[in-house]
Amino acid sequence: MKIHGKHYRTIWTNDDGWSVEIIDQTLLPHKFETVTLRSADAAAHAIRSMQVRGAPLIGATAAYGICLALRNDPSDEALDGTYEMLLQTRPTAINLKWALDDMRDHLRNRPHAERVAAAYERAAKICDDDVEICRRIGENAATIIKEIAAKKTDTSPVNILTHCNAGWLATVDWGTALAPIYMAHDAGIPVHVWVDETRPRNQGASLTAYELGAHGVSHAIIADNVGGHLMQHGQVDMCIVGTDRTTAHGDVANKIGTYLKALAAHDNGVPFYVALPHTTIDWTVGDGVTEIPIEERGPEEVTQMTGRTPDGGVVTVDIAAPGSPAANYAFDVTPARLVTALITERGVTDASKEGLARLYPELAS
Amino acid sequence: MKIHGKHYRTIWTNDDGWSVEIIDQTLLPHKFETVTLRSADAAAHAIRSMQVRGAPLIGATAAYGICLALRNDPSDEALDGTYEMLLQTRPTAINLKWALDDMRDHLRNRPHAERVAAAYERAAKICDDDVEICRRIGENAATIIKEIAAKKTDTSPVNILTHCNAGWLATVDWGTALAPIYMAHDAGIPVHVWVDETRPRNQGASLTAYELGAHGVSHAIIADNVGGHLMQHGQVDMCIVGTDRTTAHGDVANKIGTYLKALAAHDNGVPFYVALPHTTIDWTVGDGVTEIPIEERGPEEVTQMTGRTPDGGVVTVDIAAPGSPAANYAFDVTPARLVTALITERGVTDASKEGLARLYPELAS
Repeated sequence: MKIHGKHYRTIWTNDDGWSVEIIDQTLLPHKFETVTLRSADAAAHAIRSMQVRGAPLIGATAAYGICLALRNDPSDEALDGTYEMLLQTRPTAINLKWALDDMRDHLRNRPHAERVAAAYERAAKICDDDVEICRRIGENAATIIKEIAAKKTDTSPVNILTHCNAGWLATVDWGTALAPIYMAHDAGIPVHVWVDETRPRNQGASLTAYELGAHGVSHAIIADNVGGHLMQHGQVDMCIVGTDRTTAHGDVANKIGTYLKALAAHDNGVPFYVALPHTTIDWTVGDGVTEIPIEERGPEEVTQMTGRTPDGGVVTVDIAAPGSPAANYAFDVTPARLVTALITERGVTDASKEGLARLYPELAS
Repeated sequence: MKIHGKHYRTIWTNDDGWSVEIIDQTLLPHKFETVTLRSADAAAHAIRSMQVRGAPLIGATAAYGICLALRNDPSDEALDGTYEMLLQTRPTAINLKWALDDMRDHLRNRPHAERVAAAYERAAKICDDDVEICRRIGENAATIIKEIAAKKTDTSPVNILTHCNAGWLATVDWGTALAPIYMAHDAGIPVHVWVDETRPRNQGASLTAYELGAHGVSHAIIADNVGGHLMQHGQVDMCIVGTDRTTAHGDVANKIGTYLKALAAHDNGVPFYVALPHTTIDWTVGDGVTEIPIEERGPEEVTQMTGRTPDGGVVTVDIAAPGSPAANYAFDVTPARLVTALITERGVTDASKEGLARLYPELAS
């Protein structure tokens, strides 16, 4: 993704060869600033405070958190302790555990002296792999957009609804759900994106709209309440979202509110796609609704809002009635029955145990 | 409703005998201020700018708008012109047309000299009737809450989800969907209300939470995305909402996003109730999705947010990516098939042509 004409990934190592740079996504879209991570604690803080977010990027950041810890102490105790500490940062996205497992498995049997170099090499590979995986997801999903475009009998664009941010900023590059939109747009297919603002943290209005605007893709921010109305009136050709954890049965945990859009899509015959790398599949979980832990976050994310004042400042204001309590569940689970298809780097499948096992026979147990 | 210990309706005539006082709801929950309306234009502005909102209160305000116009000019031309002008203020709530029709029918055949007094008398009657109607709706719906409470085998409260504000502030007093909640609470039944914040104008967080807090009812504000998750996990016993226009077939136009909650309720076996006075029924409309005009409002309602700063000021901030377009549809239509029952001042009925005709044989054609 290019920002101000310069190509960026969302995470990279600095010229010093060890410190890690991220974009502080809590400041977007108001400010584009990067933050330097110099310790595993800083990586944990970045994940917990959502300076980085999005399942794949959380995984990549955790991988670099291991690297930063091992620089100070390459022992097994440090490796295991950092693993546990980072694993606790957020509960729902399974890529976090996947990346930490991958790093620990890769490092455990190496001599201490080799661990730091091996860790950085492995974290870089996780990032490079993520970019390539997202590119393939994009190609597979772009095929679907092209098919919808080919069937259009008028000049209207392919209208695509997305929830939260499953774009460049949620991954290392490209994104999952947004990757095919960029590719279709670049291929000259007219697309228009309905961007759910995605309360309470507004990742749609803040991040997805920011990305799409930077790439020149036609879009409009809508309140999360609007999608059903649009679908009732034929103004959505397809929905596509990312996921923080997909079960072996095809249930999809994603940003809170995804389930409501899937219900509306189902009620109106609109296809509902979920784009994901295999690292987001939790092969140990069957029923997503009962088994996936759903993060609860602080009420202030609901009752406060940050924005730009006319004089260019950025302030946080209280928007609710004084003293009103609020509850803040960050994810929900969309049952597989509401998902038209899962789109992975290996191809497209129905959201089912059999479908996922066909694509990943070596992972499905 | 008592505010700071004093009983208020949401609209009343001042001691001068003619000017009309309203609560400026655009300032809530940050400031409680009233506004004096001295002309039909001021009444139209109050409706259009949403200083007053809520279908019944819009109707009452329009009725007083007629009064204010006739003080200056009691002619047929003024009556008809004011009728047309006020009718254009907002398109979806049918109570607006109902109240204007009622006023015009009542005044048309009177001598000019009697019109002003007759108009004020009629507007006052519309308000008094609304209070009584809401009280009866509340009693009818409170019976349902009591039944749910009686079936509870644990000590949990009756968990009620509501969308937007169908409370005191949406009517002259009591409210529609909130009236039974106040009555159940006052009767000692433990209730807890999940308050959808109701983007983009946040009537839930601003108005419903304000009302419930003032009355001491347990509640929590939630993002509009959350209700489906709560219903999946058994945390909602019933949904109850108001409506801006209900068709003769039982389709329900209400604040944007209502449809999504009705879908989730249906998917999880949670009863979904709509509370309404007969003045909200549009007997001329059958299919709500295709026939009810849905208001589109300005994009700034989506991209900006007003709140309180730590120093006590009230500011409006930009929350979206700079330059991002936004679309703002204010209502959606919930098909009758998703509505468990309509609760009116005459009783409870299934959402159907036959059900409504049984309750209102003299109005159903």
